[in-house]
Amino acid sequence: MPRSKAYPPVPLGAVRPGATIGILGGGQLGRMIAMAAASLGLKSHVFCPDRDAPAYDVSAARTVAAYEDETALAAFAKSVDLVTYEFENVPGPTAAFLAGRVPLRPNAAALATSQDRLVEKSFVAELGIGTAPFRAVDSEQDLVEALHALGAPAILKTRRFGYDGKGQIRIRAGDRAGEIFAHLGGAPAILEGFVKFSKEISVIAARGADGAFAAYDPCLNEHRHGILHRTTLPAGISDALAARAAGAARRIAEALDYIGVIAVEMFVVEGEGGEEVLVNEMAPRVHNSGHWTIEGAETSQFEQHVRAVCGWPLGATAARGRIEMVNLIGDEIETWPAILAEPGAHLHHYGKARARPGRKMGHVTRVMRE
Amino acid sequence: MPRSKAYPPVPLGAVRPGATIGILGGGQLGRMIAMAAASLGLKSHVFCPDRDAPAYDVSAARTVAAYEDETALAAFAKSVDLVTYEFENVPGPTAAFLAGRVPLRPNAAALATSQDRLVEKSFVAELGIGTAPFRAVDSEQDLVEALHALGAPAILKTRRFGYDGKGQIRIRAGDRAGEIFAHLGGAPAILEGFVKFSKEISVIAARGADGAFAAYDPCLNEHRHGILHRTTLPAGISDALAARAAGAARRIAEALDYIGVIAVEMFVVEGEGGEEVLVNEMAPRVHNSGHWTIEGAETSQFEQHVRAVCGWPLGATAARGRIEMVNLIGDEIETWPAILAEPGAHLHHYGKARARPGRKMGHVTRVMRE
Repeated sequence: MPRSKAYPPVPLGAVRPGATIGILGGGQLGRMIAMAAASLGLKSHVFCPDRDAPAYDVSAARTVAAYEDETALAAFAKSVDLVTYEFENVPGPTAAFLAGRVPLRPNAAALATSQDRLVEKSFVAELGIGTAPFRAVDSEQDLVEALHALGAPAILKTRRFGYDGKGQIRIRAGDRAGEIFAHLGGAPAILEGFVKFSKEISVIAARGADGAFAAYDPCLNEHRHGILHRTTLPAGISDALAARAAGAARRIAEALDYIGVIAVEMFVVEGEGGEEVLVNEMAPRVHNSGHWTIEGAETSQFEQHVRAVCGWPLGATAARGRIEMVNLIGDEIETWPAILAEPGAHLHHYGKARARPGRKMGHVTRVMRE
Repeated sequence: MPRSKAYPPVPLGAVRPGATIGILGGGQLGRMIAMAAASLGLKSHVFCPDRDAPAYDVSAARTVAAYEDETALAAFAKSVDLVTYEFENVPGPTAAFLAGRVPLRPNAAALATSQDRLVEKSFVAELGIGTAPFRAVDSEQDLVEALHALGAPAILKTRRFGYDGKGQIRIRAGDRAGEIFAHLGGAPAILEGFVKFSKEISVIAARGADGAFAAYDPCLNEHRHGILHRTTLPAGISDALAARAAGAARRIAEALDYIGVIAVEMFVVEGEGGEEVLVNEMAPRVHNSGHWTIEGAETSQFEQHVRAVCGWPLGATAARGRIEMVNLIGDEIETWPAILAEPGAHLHHYGKARARPGRKMGHVTRVMRE
């Protein structure tokens, strides 16, 4: 019997170590995906328009080109075994071009759904999952009617390209609809009713190529100036609510035939029958609120994403204790010497050259064993 | 008061994130050093004669050149903030050339000491640390006399360039000295008396630029065919013996004015006053028997090495439970699908293209929480 017969079988359709993962986007998320891929014997090829993207430093290959550059995209597709991405605003034509040539994971539907707040909210609501009340707003008149229906306060958000609190305006009772709509530049928008939430949580989960699903424990998120400041575990919610939160993430992932890590941000609200979760938004990628998994879980979200997109079995998601992850924004990164001197604190520095205000420069994770 | 006053001070002489670490050698150790450096915001520049070195895939820059190429070494030295290495056989002139231009950590003395078994053993013995009995062997006549003094069985080893059991011959009673000495090619050698040991352990430790010292718990090593097969913790030795083992590593590091991670392999033997440790050999670098620290300790040996050579504070070394690290040698790497499917097993695949017999292709670590 040849010796090779004794080897365990490779999952159907899976890539092997030695394969190359194409990553669209070269920021800290791409960088951490590339490092996880390298630990598993994979090469990374980062495609990004930015000459100084931090992910290049840990990837075997790079393409510096616009996402619309089809010559560069075609060469990129030829050089990789699959493509994934670190950001949800991958242009639709880029996704379609690549998906026609090489497996794109997560798929283009996940991108299209999460790129448009109206599409996303409608999709989630159609699955029977709670969301804040919302109305499409394409005109000043729409806004007047939406405000009439949902009441004030409410939040007007552009349908596309919003992140970290950008493209959002809070509307108070008495504000003038015309001025506000003009403020967003007249872009297609969505009005969301104000939700009185007690907590913001997120579920980081993964779905494998074989349909397996694994969620990390929900984590509690605190924002400052619209940017994630701190994530902690446990989230301080009941096991039943945590299970419902994970169940919502699972239904979303299954409905999208999703492969990879998905992040679903939720509000915890007081409903008629006790606490409930409402989905705020989803991200078809690894997520800032999942950085705690690097030291805090058996398998990091980055390794989990790599496992999923490669067609490999998902890893264990158990948390390792009480955990805190704090973002280092702008010049907060200058606290690195103090973090390095703190026993048990884990510094992650993204290697970005300039610490602009509001820019995510790194994070620190603390795990308190139980 | 300028805002910058509030920042914690950077340790004297320390490099800052954004700096570039030069790494001599591009194997799996260099690869894992480069990944740890990247997590801390550092860039790596790998210098290696091998065109296909696995460390290139995770480093910002590479130089493919011979270690004797002074033009390449000069350019390398200019492009980095400090130089470290992943192997102890860095040629002396290479180390001297670089050390004259840029900080070399660990220093050239650590290299010179560990490159020659006779120098190493003499150095350790002069510190009052136990070793196997040994004699220098430069001729057949030396061997005859050494065998007379130490008795048989004994082990004849070349003084330089031995690793993984290479360059060693076991001598049994009645073997002919002439034939044996010729077998090693007449190279300068050392005869080591046979030691009846109950265990092989190693201490992975680090010394910072400020003289701080931190040791990981000793680990138990099992070899197969002269290559490390398995490392486990706890090592099953008394706390007192563990403290003596760490103390020996500390004296060695201090005597060398060492900066970085050091590995000291020891035998546990039955002495007159109970169990003792004898130092077998040291490696001035991160070490295979320290791979368990990636998941098994608060700070991995790779991060610890980076912290030390950068002039940063050492990290916590506490172990996280009962730990097993198993090397994947040659085609054992083909078991990767089974390892990925095993809950709690952590696969490390070094991304080497060809699985030659005896080649270290990866490892797997299992941590059992206590």
